[in-house]
Amino acid sequence: MTVVALVPAAGRGVRLGAGMPKALVQVAGRSLLVRAVGGLLDSGRVHHVVVAAPPDQVDVVERELGEFDAAAVHVVAGGADRTESVRLALAVTERAVPDADVVLVHDAARAFTPPAMIGAVVDAVLGGASAVIPVLPVADTIKQVDEAGAVTATVDRSPLRSVQTPQGFRPGVLRAAYDAAGGAATDDAGLVERAGGEVRTVPGHPNALKITTAFDLAVAESVLAVEPIGELR
Amino acid sequence: MTVVALVPAAGRGVRLGAGMPKALVQVAGRSLLVRAVGGLLDSGRVHHVVVAAPPDQVDVVERELGEFDAAAVHVVAGGADRTESVRLALAVTERAVPDADVVLVHDAARAFTPPAMIGAVVDAVLGGASAVIPVLPVADTIKQVDEAGAVTATVDRSPLRSVQTPQGFRPGVLRAAYDAAGGAATDDAGLVERAGGEVRTVPGHPNALKITTAFDLAVAESVLAVEPIGELR
Repeated sequence: MTVVALVPAAGRGVRLGAGMPKALVQVAGRSLLVRAVGGLLDSGRVHHVVVAAPPDQVDVVERELGEFDAAAVHVVAGGADRTESVRLALAVTERAVPDADVVLVHDAARAFTPPAMIGAVVDAVLGGASAVIPVLPVADTIKQVDEAGAVTATVDRSPLRSVQTPQGFRPGVLRAAYDAAGGAATDDAGLVERAGGEVRTVPGHPNALKITTAFDLAVAESVLAVEPIGELR
Repeated sequence: MTVVALVPAAGRGVRLGAGMPKALVQVAGRSLLVRAVGGLLDSGRVHHVVVAAPPDQVDVVERELGEFDAAAVHVVAGGADRTESVRLALAVTERAVPDADVVLVHDAARAFTPPAMIGAVVDAVLGGASAVIPVLPVADTIKQVDEAGAVTATVDRSPLRSVQTPQGFRPGVLRAAYDAAGGAATDDAGLVERAGGEVRTVPGHPNALKITTAFDLAVAESVLAVEPIGELR
């Protein structure tokens, strides 16, 4: 049984404004990427991690990941956007690990994802689901607005879930979805849906938040990196 | 021109698990309630704050708020749920400040709401809107699921907004909405919508997050209370 995780990490991190690939932004002395890859391996369920780096910084990212077993962590040149980076990492995976049973796609920015949550995604795919996403209930009241900012409706949030990563797939399902997809996609499971596949859910976790803004970074720096609060919620 | 803010704070705080009214939970030495009331007054736009306390703890809450001008901050006995507490605080307001131009309803748990955001809500009501809510874009991918947890659709989140407080109203509009509402409501602007009124939006702020879980509390303790990061986002 072999599990491969793809980590698209070629983004430039404009919103974080740190002037470097976003995945290399440090939180309490360790980059988001090192933390994300470490979490995948710490789950004990992931055998290979394929990281898609900015094409001109493959060597920088390789050095960044030097602490990990070189047989488990592989850096490839990513593409112009997330979709292209996943495509490239998936192609490498298909050549190098043709017998993979599960492919995960994970955001480096979800650097504090609990390893147990990663295991739950793997389990759900091995249990027969062709595509699996970790989700949380939508906590806030949600309104629909028009272009002028006037409220047009209150949305029933009870059937809504916000989506985290890693998302897990049978390799053939992810391949077929990407083959069927035309343009860019930020939502891998959405491609499976569009291709007619079934997507299942497992419980997400607040610590799996995506570090996107300076606020998120401050949260991570102050709360998550110093003292993991794990199961407090 | 007179602005009154209602703060329903009679909740028992079961989710925070602190064994006291949630609004009295401390963050870095000051309770959520003191911070929320302080933020309202710091906006320079709010003349009276009416706090609905747990009925058996009016004196406790009065002592908690002793640092504020007693002519500006009033504590009343709240009800069994948020709706009832707002009703009771609104009734007191109508008797004591019959000429109010704007009524705000604010969650004590949004203790770090920037005062400037509070001012923007007041301005929008004074500018002619009958009901105003602060909102943020929905950042996460959102899926709709069925009862078995299978994904049934990807939701177009571009017209969706998550709602914060304070929400601002023309007093007569809020009164009419509460009169028309039957049962419990956690969403004051939703009552106005249901009564056929128009609801406008102004930009919310990440610091106006609702402190509901231990995770939120840790965020507030570590990030917001120590060093307000204000405009970083």
